[in-house]
Amino acid sequence: MSAFEKLLQHSEKVSHFSHLSAICGWDQAAMMPAGGAEARAAAMAELSVHIHNLKTQPQLGEWFNDADNETLNVEQQATLREMKRDWQQANVLPQALVEAQSLAGSRCEHAWRTQRTENDWAGFEKNWAEVVKLSQEEAQIRAEATGLSPYDAMLEIYEPGTSSASLDIVFDDVKGWLPDLIDQALEKQASESFIAPSGHYPAAQQKALGQDVMKLLQFDFNHGRLDESVHPFCGGVPSDVRITTRYRDDEFVQSLMGIVHETGHARYEQGLPKHLAGSAAGEARSMGIHESQSLFFEMQLGRSSAFIAQLASLCVHHFSGHDAALFAVDNLQKIYTRIKKDFIRVDADELTYPAHVILRYEIERDLINGVISHNDVPELWDTKMQQYLGLSTAGNFRDGCMQDIHWTDGAFGYFPSYTLGAMYAAQFMASMRDTVDVEAAVRRADLTPVFSWLQDNLWSKGSLLTTDELVKQATGEVLNARHFKAHLQQRYL
Amino acid sequence: MSAFEKLLQHSEKVSHFSHLSAICGWDQAAMMPAGGAEARAAAMAELSVHIHNLKTQPQLGEWFNDADNETLNVEQQATLREMKRDWQQANVLPQALVEAQSLAGSRCEHAWRTQRTENDWAGFEKNWAEVVKLSQEEAQIRAEATGLSPYDAMLEIYEPGTSSASLDIVFDDVKGWLPDLIDQALEKQASESFIAPSGHYPAAQQKALGQDVMKLLQFDFNHGRLDESVHPFCGGVPSDVRITTRYRDDEFVQSLMGIVHETGHARYEQGLPKHLAGSAAGEARSMGIHESQSLFFEMQLGRSSAFIAQLASLCVHHFSGHDAALFAVDNLQKIYTRIKKDFIRVDADELTYPAHVILRYEIERDLINGVISHNDVPELWDTKMQQYLGLSTAGNFRDGCMQDIHWTDGAFGYFPSYTLGAMYAAQFMASMRDTVDVEAAVRRADLTPVFSWLQDNLWSKGSLLTTDELVKQATGEVLNARHFKAHLQQRYL
Ligand SMILES: [Zn+2]
Ligand SMILES: [Zn+2]
Repeated sequence: MSAFEKLLQHSEKVSHFSHLSAICGWDQAAMMPAGGAEARAAAMAELSVHIHNLKTQPQLGEWFNDADNETLNVEQQATLREMKRDWQQANVLPQALVEAQSLAGSRCEHAWRTQRTENDWAGFEKNWAEVVKLSQEEAQIRAEATGLSPYDAMLEIYEPGTSSASLDIVFDDVKGWLPDLIDQALEKQASESFIAPSGHYPAAQQKALGQDVMKLLQFDFNHGRLDESVHPFCGGVPSDVRITTRYRDDEFVQSLMGIVHETGHARYEQGLPKHLAGSAAGEARSMGIHESQSLFFEMQLGRSSAFIAQLASLCVHHFSGHDAALFAVDNLQKIYTRIKKDFIRVDADELTYPAHVILRYEIERDLINGVISHNDVPELWDTKMQQYLGLSTAGNFRDGCMQDIHWTDGAFGYFPSYTLGAMYAAQFMASMRDTVDVEAAVRRADLTPVFSWLQDNLWSKGSLLTTDELVKQATGEVLNARHFKAHLQQRYL
Repeated sequence: MSAFEKLLQHSEKVSHFSHLSAICGWDQAAMMPAGGAEARAAAMAELSVHIHNLKTQPQLGEWFNDADNETLNVEQQATLREMKRDWQQANVLPQALVEAQSLAGSRCEHAWRTQRTENDWAGFEKNWAEVVKLSQEEAQIRAEATGLSPYDAMLEIYEPGTSSASLDIVFDDVKGWLPDLIDQALEKQASESFIAPSGHYPAAQQKALGQDVMKLLQFDFNHGRLDESVHPFCGGVPSDVRITTRYRDDEFVQSLMGIVHETGHARYEQGLPKHLAGSAAGEARSMGIHESQSLFFEMQLGRSSAFIAQLASLCVHHFSGHDAALFAVDNLQKIYTRIKKDFIRVDADELTYPAHVILRYEIERDLINGVISHNDVPELWDTKMQQYLGLSTAGNFRDGCMQDIHWTDGAFGYFPSYTLGAMYAAQFMASMRDTVDVEAAVRRADLTPVFSWLQDNLWSKGSLLTTDELVKQATGEVLNARHFKAHLQQRYL
């Protein structure tokens, strides 16, 4: 057996345990009663240790060395490259640091849950200093291993091949026109009125509606399910993708579009190359590309008037007792494109969301690169918030730099993925329109041409190409903010 | 760290992986879409191999040797004994035999699914010969390791400490009075009439009813769930017990009592000693004791007139559109105690069930001990069926010796557990009645005294006592059929 084959076999073994982890993780969020938590956490921790042990077995280094000298075809070369990346990520950090981070992250997050409510920056800052320090150490180690800057080495975890230099270019572009665009759109919407949902929307009806929308989006129910959890997510494995949502009794708006979003993630997973299942090359390309698919579904498709018309008729069908005027296409569209300058990222609309992300990106980049200290963050937050959204967070830590869970855990480098995803999605749509009449497909409720394009250009590629190659092959150009800007102008002006 | 502590730690590690296996197994049966089956099977197989590897690690033998010489308290001694039993079971068979059995069992079972429909004994016999041969080899190896007879060594897997000599005594007792009792009961029921369920019973209503019954039975929903699967079962882990049922639209009778049965299994699991969780001593004592709990719930409690009165009022509440006469206590009781001589074990009632089991026990005992050949089975089946139930299966293999899945897989030694369970259940109830007014507790819908008795005498013991000790401490006598007979006479005559 060649070294490459040994690596493949090992990778498949690891993927079997990851499969179990994904299913038990889904169960934990969607099915498990509270009393099962403690024993489950212990079982999952044992599994994590086992997976880590497998990924750090000493013979792997030798196999990777040997495989470098074996004759491989293009697909095998890409597979080897991705397996190696995965292996390096798993081996680069000393165990002591990983454990210290886990401990500091848990402590910080646990305290944060009450500190945030109490707007207690001073208390939070004490724990967070340690988290930041350890993340800087992590970034330093990753930087030495990759030859990148500390922050770029962290980005590499979520967005392989994406540098802060390239992010600076596209984000600076966005910063140049976004604040004005938001103001113009707000002015336009100031005179608009719409009917908001009222009354009662039973979960069972919302679920039936959601499943119909998933069918319209060609979700494969033979390889997946829709369930409920407090925090909606897309989990499971490509052969069995589990998406979740959360229903509110008094409205359907959030849950419905949430299902569209998670279905985008799910279809990407369901469309990954089956012949590469179990190897790193068969996995999703990056967090940004993953989010590009959910945002393609939610923003590019889901908020288009043709799609809203489909949603409207499904709503009329499932919510028969309500005022039909609520489900008028024009009214639903207003609901789904309403914008507002506000403090909280997770509640932000399509137009203001990039401002929230760019702010975080600029701060975490400088923080990890050691340009600023963690104590500078509140003031920087306030300054940038005023600059991008005209809001001040002075003294308001709870709705400022203490609002997200990401940094409490030390997950620096992840925020850019959200807006990268939105930009990729717009770029993919622009390119798709060259050959596909998207609106006609949506109007006749057969989106096959749309999904064929995504399947052929993105989903089927797994991680065989780098992100840049993938985007360039699919759209003919590298990542840029032009299509995103055009999309936002077209929708909001 | 002492050898005993090392063993405990190792046992806990194994239990973490068993936890994942239990949850993913439940998911497979209750949640997974069909398309997820192939990847799941591969992941589960990898996990099985890993668990087997853990259980057969070479250093364990040394630790067991060392632990034998360590000073242990009574509870630790029992824990060591059970860990050792588990370890011996996992190590006694050569890997080649296990693989051959798995292959032969799969082949036989796969073909059996069509052969049974086609009544094709000749076809089945060819595959089954190999299954029997390999099981005889297994029994021989187990016999040499334990000093027991081959069949007793197989019994040991499911009913540690139970010999065929003791089974012969109790089963011969039952055989002495059961056929007559059945005839008398049939004669009595011949003149009785009752109203059978008709109309429509929506699954959602049945589920709400089932959950109410589970509450009455004090199922802990903070540590468990009720779901659906094709074949009802009790799975999960003690901290998170998953029971399932299957709903039919046209009646509620089977599913409702099925839930009572599985709740019995579940409460045993939920009541196991928490401080021994993760070690073999903290697990259920045996299959027979497990079944004694489900049958205590289903037969001793569930079919008593006081309990049926509780079910009746819950049925009236949940099935409001139906004829109230159907839910009259007397009518429901007739439905739930109707008996019939018939061919199929899984459809058998409380009274004829033991005949089905004793027949199988006598045949499999002689088969595994090499007293008869697998080709003798159809004729023996016919003879015994005529003797115990007055029915002939001559030429009718499908409803005779080809009806069960157990033997196709080589699971010889398991059948006795069903009737052992029924006998234990009757013996426990008789003993409980000495100190608990069971009927009064059920009538006031607070079964706490009943469950306290079970908790104190059985559930909390885990596997700390041998089965004989457990039964003797709980009831003051060893297993016997006297209470079972009295129970059946009281109910059916
Ligand atoms: Zn997303
Ligand atoms: Zn049972």
